Amino acid sequence: KAANAQVLYDFTAEPGNNELTVKEGETITITNPNIGGGWIEAQNSRGEIGLVPEDYIEVKQKIAVGQDKHFTSYTGLQCTFCDACNQITHFTLMDSWTPSRCTVYSRTLIVPVSKNITLKVCMHSTTGADDDEWDDEWDDVKSTGGYAESETGEGGAMQRGGAHATSMKIALNKFPGFSKSGPELYLLCKQLAKGKDRLPIYMGEVGPVWFYPETQLDCVVADPKKGSKMYGLKSYIEYQITPNTTNRPVNHRYKHFDWLYERLLDKFGSAIPIPSLPDKQVTGRFEEEFIKMRMERLQGWMTRMCRHPVVSNSEVFQLFLSYKDEKDWKTGKRKAEKDETVGVMIFSTIEPEASDLDPVEVEQKCEQFSRFTKAMDDGVKEILTVGHEHWKRCTGPLPKEYQRIGKAFQNLSSVFTSSGYQGESTLTDALTAAGKTYEEIAQLVAEQPRKDLHFLMETNNEYKGLLGCFPDTIGVHKAAIDKVKEGDKLVATSKITPQEKVTMAKRLSTMSYALQAEMNHFHSNRIYDYNRVMQLYLEEQVKFYETIAEKLRQAHSQFTTM
Amino acid sequence: KAANAQVLYDFTAEPGNNELTVKEGETITITNPNIGGGWIEAQNSRGEIGLVPEDYIEVKQKIAVGQDKHFTSYTGLQCTFCDACNQITHFTLMDSWTPSRCTVYSRTLIVPVSKNITLKVCMHSTTGADDDEWDDEWDDVKSTGGYAESETGEGGAMQRGGAHATSMKIALNKFPGFSKSGPELYLLCKQLAKGKDRLPIYMGEVGPVWFYPETQLDCVVADPKKGSKMYGLKSYIEYQITPNTTNRPVNHRYKHFDWLYERLLDKFGSAIPIPSLPDKQVTGRFEEEFIKMRMERLQGWMTRMCRHPVVSNSEVFQLFLSYKDEKDWKTGKRKAEKDETVGVMIFSTIEPEASDLDPVEVEQKCEQFSRFTKAMDDGVKEILTVGHEHWKRCTGPLPKEYQRIGKAFQNLSSVFTSSGYQGESTLTDALTAAGKTYEEIAQLVAEQPRKDLHFLMETNNEYKGLLGCFPDTIGVHKAAIDKVKEGDKLVATSKITPQEKVTMAKRLSTMSYALQAEMNHFHSNRIYDYNRVMQLYLEEQVKFYETIAEKLRQAHSQFTTM
Repeated sequence: KAANAQVLYDFTAEPGNNELTVKEGETITITNPNIGGGWIEAQNSRGEIGLVPEDYIEVKQKIAVGQDKHFTSYTGLQCTFCDACNQITHFTLMDSWTPSRCTVYSRTLIVPVSKNITLKVCMHSTTGADDDEWDDEWDDVKSTGGYAESETGEGGAMQRGGAHATSMKIALNKFPGFSKSGPELYLLCKQLAKGKDRLPIYMGEVGPVWFYPETQLDCVVADPKKGSKMYGLKSYIEYQITPNTTNRPVNHRYKHFDWLYERLLDKFGSAIPIPSLPDKQVTGRFEEEFIKMRMERLQGWMTRMCRHPVVSNSEVFQLFLSYKDEKDWKTGKRKAEKDETVGVMIFSTIEPEASDLDPVEVEQKCEQFSRFTKAMDDGVKEILTVGHEHWKRCTGPLPKEYQRIGKAFQNLSSVFTSSGYQGESTLTDALTAAGKTYEEIAQLVAEQPRKDLHFLMETNNEYKGLLGCFPDTIGVHKAAIDKVKEGDKLVATSKITPQEKVTMAKRLSTMSYALQAEMNHFHSNRIYDYNRVMQLYLEEQVKFYETIAEKLRQAHSQFTTM
Repeated sequence: KAANAQVLYDFTAEPGNNELTVKEGETITITNPNIGGGWIEAQNSRGEIGLVPEDYIEVKQKIAVGQDKHFTSYTGLQCTFCDACNQITHFTLMDSWTPSRCTVYSRTLIVPVSKNITLKVCMHSTTGADDDEWDDEWDDVKSTGGYAESETGEGGAMQRGGAHATSMKIALNKFPGFSKSGPELYLLCKQLAKGKDRLPIYMGEVGPVWFYPETQLDCVVADPKKGSKMYGLKSYIEYQITPNTTNRPVNHRYKHFDWLYERLLDKFGSAIPIPSLPDKQVTGRFEEEFIKMRMERLQGWMTRMCRHPVVSNSEVFQLFLSYKDEKDWKTGKRKAEKDETVGVMIFSTIEPEASDLDPVEVEQKCEQFSRFTKAMDDGVKEILTVGHEHWKRCTGPLPKEYQRIGKAFQNLSSVFTSSGYQGESTLTDALTAAGKTYEEIAQLVAEQPRKDLHFLMETNNEYKGLLGCFPDTIGVHKAAIDKVKEGDKLVATSKITPQEKVTMAKRLSTMSYALQAEMNHFHSNRIYDYNRVMQLYLEEQVKFYETIAEKLRQAHSQFTTM
């Protein structure tokens, strides 16, 4: 079931890396979608085969009509199929390009409205893994004819931070902080929130810091279980989440994680970068591998949220982790959805203990954070690029070469055994053992990336996602700075009172304390995370080289020169 | 000074190895002749660059006319230039293709007679390294017009054994055992040699064996010195050879080694495989490297000859190692050149102590040796092929990748340093150290092949050369077997007497004992050599992996999670 794909961007192969040079607009055939590390193997029209970054292509396929009772046909659409499962199992209709998501591999697809072509949508999720927003939105599509969904559904997923930056095609405008009103909604509001929602900022050793609870919240995501509905036609995965506070497990589907993400983004997104949920990046050759990978990433996401003192202490997050029963969950859900302290209004709950900052200092801080996050984004992406290359080599050409070395030694040993000369069994046994050792090394080399590089890549991927959120967070901040700079003009033209100008500067100071607290939180996490992942990486690398050295030492001991 | 080259054979690039696919007859441009390991880097007409085996190409270049007083022009020739030095400094004219040798890099070139093109021959050897047969044969060419040389000079070098098999173009017919007369010269000769030339064969534990002296001859080739003649226009290298018998050094130029090789081939070639001298395979980026490499290989050749009980004990070999003065050397030289016990007549000096063998058994043994040497030739070539690949990867893409990993860590460390967050110098120092460690690993990886793979390759190259001689040695033997099989017919047609038929069978038995003794010598050397080289290889490999593990362990120790 080789799928064709269209090349979205020019890509020039680096020599010696098994890569394939492709041009924008060129059509290629996917020969192996399961390379991993962000690569697929494809063949061009000249028959050349090589690796291409999966972000650079879009899988297209002509659509066959109604061969199966599980398919429902829709006309008026041309669609791109999931490059891994070759099916579309979910889509949202829009009057322009719209992203759709494969329910098996959770990849975001592009569904352009185009000539009269019939789109078949598989209702029978073949592997059973399920994004499970599917059912809801499927129903929506059916009831509305599909053209009323442009403001809901997948659109939100597409513009979450920078994790998808390279594949983003549409700039939607749904981000809470960028509503018509902008940061002035907060800067000029009459009344600040009071009471239990209050978020204090203290002065710590490193500067402004959030309030950190004495015991840090944590949770374990485990035990994925398959459930089904619609008489077994649709199946989904339910995860068990156990927080260290109640120690009582609650169940959630991916859909609920996504709901939580949307709430956190709405509520905190202007002040705190909320990284997107793992979705389209998740791939896996088998269903179990896919589920395991997604669970690992959901765990990573939850751990990061638990570690955040503001997020973890929020009502909606606590609800998610420790609702008592279905009724409790539904009530809490409804309440969270009605929360009005969202977008820039989150700043109205923040109370710094220190004195107000000068707008000039605020701007300097902001510039510094902006420079740093941009630079770190570049650094992280460099590591990811190099890591992908290395992964490819370690799982491709390198083990093949060690295998060939091993085979060559063993073949020579066989030849020597046939010599008819007596007393050379020590040599031939030793040569065979040396050959087998190199075959074992081949396997060690191929398996190693999953043991060390994997975690280095995961951590950097997480940071890439986090860093991709900063431009938005910093954007809100910069808009506020600009507003305050306009202060005099606004007073002169009677748009605001002199008192409001003073209030704006004070509130900008509050926003700056929030940004600084968040940066300090980011830095302390970053230092911990990179220390930890480098330790893990180097520890496994040491083991790897030591294991090889030990195997070779044993092989060496079998040779004798009389 | 990029040289063009013509592709001699189709070569298909293996993906991921930096190789370039080329077609027979295609013209490519050499972009780097100094890759080593039997590869050159070239560019095709489409601008693609990659590695091509140097055996697969032939360097061609248009010849400019008379720009320099050191050049002498010859017309009527088209010539191929040395791909390393871009000059021809020696050639022999023939009425068909003739090999010529570059005096700088000792590569054999092809000089076809063709349209009226002027060949310029540089009389001024630019780097000074010198094959130094040059002067003699240069004189010959001048005096005879060049067309009388077809039976002497380089022709001999071209058909030495299998080392050059892949680049052989002409089947000359100079091998002593294949003269008009063939093995019957010995099988039917009247009188066998007697006296001090006698070569006894004893029955040892492993079967027939040569007589081994109590102390094994050995010698050290060292101290290459530049000499010059023709008022400094020609220079050459003289090596000092010190045998363990006299412990008195003698000096020889490459030319003398070649003379010795020719004598040994003439005298023993029918019974004992005499490997060719290192020549065209020798390459080096710098003159010193070239001289060192040639010396290393001359040492290897001399050691192998010293280890051979028959060769090392021969008068000509002893003369080479321990002549007393110039007069002694010249007298000995003349005597050796007049030796008539050459070609198949060497068998007339061999005296086995065991009883005669049945011709059927002789044939079985011969078949077995033939199969074994063919199989080992394949095995050795496989190791060489795999070794070349591995060499290329270890000195090319792999260290580049480790370097990039190292740079990525160091870049991230720089970014972290710019965070403005206090107290992360432990992390940034550790990250920088880890980055530097990977740069060091890059260097270790790139340097490693010279420490281990080099010797594995050299030993297998030596064996490839040796094994390439066996088809000729076994060919003489098979011709003798066929002759003896014809015995009855020859008697019936009165070509030979019944007594001569008996003598032929007896002498074939002697030849078989010689072949068996030689095989047993080969086997015992082989077992020693492969044990030794594998020990060396694995020892260095263990050191390599241990060094890396230790470096990484140190890098690891710098990270801390509080």
